[in-house]
Amino acid sequence: MQTQEALTERRSVRTFNAKPVPSNLIEIIIDCARHAPTARNVQPWDFVIVTKKETLKILGSLADNGRFIAESPCCIAVFCSDTKYYLEDGCAATENILIAAEDLGLSACWVAGDKKPYCDKVRDSLGAPEDYKLVSLIPLGYSLDKPVMPSKRALKEVMHMERY
Amino acid sequence: MQTQEALTERRSVRTFNAKPVPSNLIEIIIDCARHAPTARNVQPWDFVIVTKKETLKILGSLADNGRFIAESPCCIAVFCSDTKYYLEDGCAATENILIAAEDLGLSACWVAGDKKPYCDKVRDSLGAPEDYKLVSLIPLGYSLDKPVMPSKRALKEVMHMERY
Repeated sequence: MQTQEALTERRSVRTFNAKPVPSNLIEIIIDCARHAPTARNVQPWDFVIVTKKETLKILGSLADNGRFIAESPCCIAVFCSDTKYYLEDGCAATENILIAAEDLGLSACWVAGDKKPYCDKVRDSLGAPEDYKLVSLIPLGYSLDKPVMPSKRALKEVMHMERY
Repeated sequence: MQTQEALTERRSVRTFNAKPVPSNLIEIIIDCARHAPTARNVQPWDFVIVTKKETLKILGSLADNGRFIAESPCCIAVFCSDTKYYLEDGCAATENILIAAEDLGLSACWVAGDKKPYCDKVRDSLGAPEDYKLVSLIPLGYSLDKPVMPSKRALKEVMHMERY
C-alpha cells in the first residue's frame, strides 16, 4: 500500500473475525515499530504479543475502554522503561504499529495505557519489569468492519501559516 | 513510496539545502497529520508552518537541541490544547508528519517540545493560545544527507511472545 493511503485511510476498528494474525506479519509490524524515532536513540520500548485467549480475556477485563480485547485474536502491549521521553517514544512506535497493520490489510485500535489505573496490573499480568510503563494496548486482526471516518477538523482549520 | 519502506528507512536528518518545501507538499503532510489517531476524536492539534527566515532563527535560538532549525527552509510546530491525552495525540500526529515527509522525498527531524524549558517561549513567539502545549518542532527540507541508521535493538530482543 502507498504510504499516504495508509496514513489517511486508517481507522480505529474494534471488531475482528477469528482468523489469527500470521506470525510473519507480526514480525513485520514489530520491525516497523522498532524503527520509530526515539530521543537520543534510547529505544526504551519492548513489545509483548498476546494471542492466548486466556491472557486476552485478562487484558479485556482490566482495560475498561478496551473490553473488546477479550474477543480479539491478537493484542500488542507497548511498554517502555521509565525514561524522560518514554511516552513520546512509545507513541511513535504505537503509531508505526497502526500504520504497518493498515498496510498489511489488518485492522487495529489504539487503547490507552499511560495514565490508566490498569497500567500496573497489565504490566504484572504480562511479566514486564516493575519500572516499565504501559504506553498502549493494540488489539488487531482481520475485520470486515470499516467504520465511517469520524468527523475531522478541516485542513484549513488546523494548518496555520507562519503564525497561529 | 511503499509504507513499510517509509516506516523503516526514515532517518533523523538535521542538514538541508536551501530549496524551499513546496506548499502543496506541506498540505499533504498536514493532511496526513490530521488523520492521526486521537483519543475520543478530540483532535487537540494545531500545526504552525514556519518558513520565514527570521522566525526560523528565533526557533533555533530557543530550542537548545534544535539549533539547526535556524538553517532549515521550513519548520512545523505541533501544538495541542491541554487535554488528558494531548501528548499521545500530538506524538501520533508528529509521527505521521515524519512518515509523510519521508514518503515525499523530504528529510526531517523530531525536536522535542513537551517538557522543554522553551515551550512557552515558542508558543508565544508563534502566537498560539496560552493553554496550548508545544509537542514537537519538526524542521524539514531537502537533503543529500542520509545518516547511517543508528544501532537498533534487534527484533528478537524487543519482541516477546505471550509474556515479557
